[in-house]
Amino acid sequence: MRKLIGIDLGGTTVKFAILTEKGEIQQKWSIETDIRNEGNNIIPSIVESINHRLNIYGLSANDFLGIGMGSPGTVDRENGTVIGAYNLNWSTLKPVKELIEAGTGIPFYIDNDANAAALGESWKGAGEGGADVVFITLGTGVGGGVIAEGNLIHGRGSAGEIGHIIVDPNGYRCTCGNHGCLETVASATGIVRLARDLSEKFAGESELKWFIDDGQEVTSKTVFELAKQEDRLAAIVVDKFYFYLGLACANIANILNPEAIVIGGGVSAAGEMLLKGVEENFHKFAFPQVKTSTEIKLAQLGNDAGVIGAASLVSHARKRY
Amino acid sequence: MRKLIGIDLGGTTVKFAILTEKGEIQQKWSIETDIRNEGNNIIPSIVESINHRLNIYGLSANDFLGIGMGSPGTVDRENGTVIGAYNLNWSTLKPVKELIEAGTGIPFYIDNDANAAALGESWKGAGEGGADVVFITLGTGVGGGVIAEGNLIHGRGSAGEIGHIIVDPNGYRCTCGNHGCLETVASATGIVRLARDLSEKFAGESELKWFIDDGQEVTSKTVFELAKQEDRLAAIVVDKFYFYLGLACANIANILNPEAIVIGGGVSAAGEMLLKGVEENFHKFAFPQVKTSTEIKLAQLGNDAGVIGAASLVSHARKRY
Repeated sequence: MRKLIGIDLGGTTVKFAILTEKGEIQQKWSIETDIRNEGNNIIPSIVESINHRLNIYGLSANDFLGIGMGSPGTVDRENGTVIGAYNLNWSTLKPVKELIEAGTGIPFYIDNDANAAALGESWKGAGEGGADVVFITLGTGVGGGVIAEGNLIHGRGSAGEIGHIIVDPNGYRCTCGNHGCLETVASATGIVRLARDLSEKFAGESELKWFIDDGQEVTSKTVFELAKQEDRLAAIVVDKFYFYLGLACANIANILNPEAIVIGGGVSAAGEMLLKGVEENFHKFAFPQVKTSTEIKLAQLGNDAGVIGAASLVSHARKRY
Repeated sequence: MRKLIGIDLGGTTVKFAILTEKGEIQQKWSIETDIRNEGNNIIPSIVESINHRLNIYGLSANDFLGIGMGSPGTVDRENGTVIGAYNLNWSTLKPVKELIEAGTGIPFYIDNDANAAALGESWKGAGEGGADVVFITLGTGVGGGVIAEGNLIHGRGSAGEIGHIIVDPNGYRCTCGNHGCLETVASATGIVRLARDLSEKFAGESELKWFIDDGQEVTSKTVFELAKQEDRLAAIVVDKFYFYLGLACANIANILNPEAIVIGGGVSAAGEMLLKGVEENFHKFAFPQVKTSTEIKLAQLGNDAGVIGAASLVSHARKRY
């Protein structure tokens, strides 16, 4: 049986995996992302690393159905190019597919990193092979991916902009220029923004308020930890976060009624507490038949979602042509 | 080339069409929906009407690839049954597929009526054959259908509940039990509700207010007509409607980024004025790359959307198996 290679290209590391066609990881490794020289070292270092590993494992190009990659920036799937991936120093168009196919002799497929992670979770993680799964990743920003009737949905190219669902038309200004996007209140930085803002109006006893007023560094992790300890301000902040995320999940589910909405990314480390809070609001806002058929779940694959989903791009693309 | 039959089953009429495989209507007719006898006459009358027409046109079962039907109620596509279609007096399970296949000898496919209309508009109407189209129908209620990557999206069975997207968590109570669903402000009845409510707080000169205070019958059509004549209260009412519908369209597009969101149903008769109002708000709320790539359009097929889309269920189903 032929194998797959999955690559998760990030701003600090490039993660690789060799997988079976069924998505079982057989080998895993990573290299540092070399963003010097306008990021022009990145692709050569990826090619070199793959060829080096295949050599070690006694494998050749013929053993592989393809290589799949999840990349930041704006991805052109047809042409296999990437532009505007600023954390890689890629501001000009990079012919990624051309270079990797020439360097390895293996067919190459690419999509954006949030879509790759969504495919990973829907294939081998919390989505459990479901044909309809929506993935939301809560990190520095809020990203997402939509799988419907077994297909990754791209629309005109920007489907899955879940971080920019408007949850409060009078809300905070977003980096995208709009107001009240989910990202402004549900990303790691959004939660801190909520905490600082609500702290201004909060008069009671609170360690969180004391930290903020004292100028200490406050992260979303601090907020969740203090909420768990029943800090009164922190509880108000996370309730607000649950409200907005639950509302967004309900509206997604009213449109798509997927088997699962899977929540991943750094913020989801808050775990069962977060899940319960989001579920409560989801149940308040979702349509009756929807709330009983769509499940909210925590992501299960952690860092592996990217490489597993990237590898699955190979079979998704082969199915299509 | 073999033909298709499309059926649009409604509470007052059953519409039929014979179409080419490419979706051109060759014959069209309709019968009254006979809802007496717990609706048990409906399917026999459909079978009789089809057989009668095929006889007239000198056609036989072999000339057809299949029959597709859009139905109200809860549709089980696999088993071809319908339950809970109260405007047909169908409260118990009706084995529609079994009866029609036995009566005509032609393979039968069924989906709900909003999905059928969505398929019709995406195939031959405003969606122009697009692989990614969302259809919103503004009638007594608000319904919808989602086509993504060429597939009608069902999710766990309730995808497309666009009328129950929450546009105002503190809004009016909806028949579904939630608060602030799009349907409460964007259906024909929702617009009248908005008018009555805003009239209470409106102090200026307005014919609409006078009608309402005088106890005259006010419909959504009255509101749009008066807004066109620059009635001040009517203008406030339609602006509120544009705001909510534009917000919902933006959130749909941020998730799916379809080529088009197509607005149909009775309320869409307000035409270009409505389109412009919704577009303005859509552009305010959609993500930058989304607002330039997803178009808001008016439905084009009117009453034919149902039969055309129903007929296309045949090829959608055949593609799948």
